[in-house]
Amino acid sequence: MHVIVDFCIVPLGVGVSVSAYVSACQRVIRDAGLDHHMHAYGTNIEGPWDDVMAAVKRCHEEVHAMGAPRITTTLKLGTRTDREQHMQDKIDSVNADLQGQGTV
Amino acid sequence: MHVIVDFCIVPLGVGVSVSAYVSACQRVIRDAGLDHHMHAYGTNIEGPWDDVMAAVKRCHEEVHAMGAPRITTTLKLGTRTDREQHMQDKIDSVNADLQGQGTV
Amino acid sequence: MHVIVDFCIVPLGVGVSVSAYVSACQRVIRDAGLDHHMHAYGTNIEGPWDDVMAAVKRCHEEVHAMGAPRITTTLKLGTRTDREQHMQDKIDSVNADLQGQGTV
Amino acid sequence: MHVIVDFCIVPLGVGVSVSAYVSACQRVIRDAGLDHHMHAYGTNIEGPWDDVMAAVKRCHEEVHAMGAPRITTTLKLGTRTDREQHMQDKIDSVNADLQGQGTV
Repeated sequence: MHVIVDFCIVPLGVGVSVSAYVSACQRVIRDAGLDHHMHAYGTNIEGPWDDVMAAVKRCHEEVHAMGAPRITTTLKLGTRTDREQHMQDKIDSVNADLQGQGTV
Repeated sequence: MHVIVDFCIVPLGVGVSVSAYVSACQRVIRDAGLDHHMHAYGTNIEGPWDDVMAAVKRCHEEVHAMGAPRITTTLKLGTRTDREQHMQDKIDSVNADLQGQGTV
Repeated sequence: MHVIVDFCIVPLGVGVSVSAYVSACQRVIRDAGLDHHMHAYGTNIEGPWDDVMAAVKRCHEEVHAMGAPRITTTLKLGTRTDREQHMQDKIDSVNADLQGQGTV
Repeated sequence: MHVIVDFCIVPLGVGVSVSAYVSACQRVIRDAGLDHHMHAYGTNIEGPWDDVMAAVKRCHEEVHAMGAPRITTTLKLGTRTDREQHMQDKIDSVNADLQGQGTV
């Protein structure tokens, strides 16, 4: 089962700046060989369900190992059985619709 | 690693009523032997990370098997290493604070 | 437009315990006169869109005023035009389905 | 109060393809004059709290007007009082950290 997720990890008890922890997770996801794209409020990741979920778990383990005593993550997960769809397809689909209506 | 999650699964392409799919997931979670509590916009589940995540995956598989071609799930995941905490502890902690301030 | 939301507010930069901030938000929501139900990973709230959103904004203002320099909130919002539905209706609908299948 | 949000709107009861509804929301957000960036699982938007929330409400109204009887939205909301921060700042901060560690 292929999955596209949006992953936003928030360490608590480490002060107000969280970029070092987010960076560590970027490395975990990259090292897992998963397609991903960081945006301003999370990271899109896609791949086989078990591989993506293993990376999310490793991020929690890594962020705890860096010293964060508490973590709260928000994860959106999309699966479909009707057709194959990748992250860029979703963006292309909306952009095609916008252009078709002559509004971009 | 113990986790407390909030799980909200939304099948697409099956019409406007989703209760049959949510019910099927309640049975998956119960059959996994995991502590859980359904509320009006999701279900809290707690247990070992791998067991909780296996149940979430089985819910996606089951809802697809019931005929939903597309699923989007929102999942919050909380882990902590500083102390053991269960779902009811979180609620008790807020209620104790409310009562201590004489506001309930 | 009536809305049912699930609201989870997380203050950053204030240490690992967040119950005082969550309690303050419970008081904001109660004082707004909105139906609500706290669970282990958030609070369900329902009412007119503008009233619910005004309460969410007041929670951010209050938690900042208590000293939290940064806040991240996760909010699910449900609206429907086909029929009136309240929080308990959603729970009753799933429970009726579970009982109809003789599985509870 | 300035806010950065991540907005993901899901219409129910309209079949499996949702791109026409997402496109309509892109136009609503653009017409509101708000900075925004669409990714594969939502749209980042930033601006004054009331303006951003008014756009989110207009999206629900528009998607219902297009015929969707039910909508579920997931919204993340970030505010901070310690300093001004824009969407690109968050991305730059993580990238700077990654480069500082020689890992990009």
